[in-house]
Amino acid sequence: MQIITTINEMKAWSAKARRESKTLGFVPTMGYLHEGHMSLVHKSLAECDVTIVSSYVNPAQFGPNEDLDTYPSAPEKDRDLLLSAGVDVLFRPAAGEIYPKGYKTYVSVEGITAKLCGISRPDFFRGVTTVVLKLFNIVAPDKAYFGEKDWQQLAVIETMVRDLNMDVEIRRMPLLRESDGLAMSSRNRYLDSSERNSALLLSRALKMAQEKTKNGERSANKIRDEIRQIINESSQAKIDYITLCDPYNFEEVTNLNGKTLAALAVKIGSARLIDNCILESV
Amino acid sequence: MQIITTINEMKAWSAKARRESKTLGFVPTMGYLHEGHMSLVHKSLAECDVTIVSSYVNPAQFGPNEDLDTYPSAPEKDRDLLLSAGVDVLFRPAAGEIYPKGYKTYVSVEGITAKLCGISRPDFFRGVTTVVLKLFNIVAPDKAYFGEKDWQQLAVIETMVRDLNMDVEIRRMPLLRESDGLAMSSRNRYLDSSERNSALLLSRALKMAQEKTKNGERSANKIRDEIRQIINESSQAKIDYITLCDPYNFEEVTNLNGKTLAALAVKIGSARLIDNCILESV
Repeated sequence: MQIITTINEMKAWSAKARRESKTLGFVPTMGYLHEGHMSLVHKSLAECDVTIVSSYVNPAQFGPNEDLDTYPSAPEKDRDLLLSAGVDVLFRPAAGEIYPKGYKTYVSVEGITAKLCGISRPDFFRGVTTVVLKLFNIVAPDKAYFGEKDWQQLAVIETMVRDLNMDVEIRRMPLLRESDGLAMSSRNRYLDSSERNSALLLSRALKMAQEKTKNGERSANKIRDEIRQIINESSQAKIDYITLCDPYNFEEVTNLNGKTLAALAVKIGSARLIDNCILESV
Repeated sequence: MQIITTINEMKAWSAKARRESKTLGFVPTMGYLHEGHMSLVHKSLAECDVTIVSSYVNPAQFGPNEDLDTYPSAPEKDRDLLLSAGVDVLFRPAAGEIYPKGYKTYVSVEGITAKLCGISRPDFFRGVTTVVLKLFNIVAPDKAYFGEKDWQQLAVIETMVRDLNMDVEIRRMPLLRESDGLAMSSRNRYLDSSERNSALLLSRALKMAQEKTKNGERSANKIRDEIRQIINESSQAKIDYITLCDPYNFEEVTNLNGKTLAALAVKIGSARLIDNCILESV
């Protein structure tokens, strides 16, 4: 596995792979890899000739009072994981490579970024789309892999790729959970054992919502209220939002019909956790 | 010469040319071609294996009270000009191709777009960078040609290309003038004969500024005032701005030193005209 730290080297590596008619798979990450990330890596390894994983904690997607400075990192462990998986390149851009002095250009998706996570994190999606577009231009992948844990982010990236006529295929991969139901996330690392217990309420509430829907409940208000009740069982949980909405335009629904996204963001201790599932009503 | 109207066909054409190891030159235009455009076309023909010219009046770069609906067009004449020049592809996207229903994504360059033309045209540069990035993704050129008549636009596009790690080389070409000094522009078409006479004041004022600089004047205020006096000789001329500034960051200068951009925007009748030149002081 090659570790590349400069944009020029990364571009040269990709250009060579392309000239050799190889298909390029790409998994962008912020490091501190867990099984969720690795499921994307394995899918890319299975589908593409070569796989590039980037590891870059993108300052542009953090707000002023967020956890940029404390975001967990484990570079050696990440490297070993990717090496044993058989990844071809770990792209770990050095400081100043991505946003050099005088940097001025940003990519924004309107509308869908103003909802859900966009309300409490107004610059988050702009940071994500900007860095993802840059990474796509640098790596020039055929396919890029993202997890449905960040459902809204995925919809935003799909919109950008379509609107800007980019040639990369976005591959959606399912959210992975720990054995007790907690959605896998690098930020779970922030939780002490009592907070981790509270965090289980998120997946428990979503499971309840799925069961209610399966049993015929069609009122979004009722399901939302019950989710809220479950989350509020813990005094440590501060709800950011709970939504039942269209999975693509994020408009709130009143009556469940077809596929509805149930999504929530909850702050527990210093961790802002998100989780989601699809409610299927027929 | 092939005329292509869909994005998919344009992408396929470019992909084939690339597979054949051809270098692609690209000249994006809004049509109604004049010698200024054709100088870009000829440069591309001389430097690249194949040349693609796009013709698209981009709604995103027009403000609500601007001339989108009256922008001049001459599709047959344009086609004949490009055909006899030896252009390979005229890309003329059909309505709805560039901004289909549900379009949401925009590219912005901060800072330098808030000055000069950005003051009276707040959405102009966002429209330009968005469409240029889209066209670059569709055409995938090696080199793209722009005229220095739109000096600020060129600086904005260069910034976008550098910031977003795009692989296209931006080629700057000099502003061309009519024999009487008027900067070539599709919008000159809006001028009646009396207005056209007034419009000559723009290039006359800039020429005066160059002579004063050559003769040792170093006060930006003095030169700016003299430019204003010349423009105000016509009661038809409504000055938008007159600036003497750094040619790259557009900060106003007080004393001329090295290269200074003299740029102005003046409304004459229904035409908003721009012109510029570099003042060299040593």
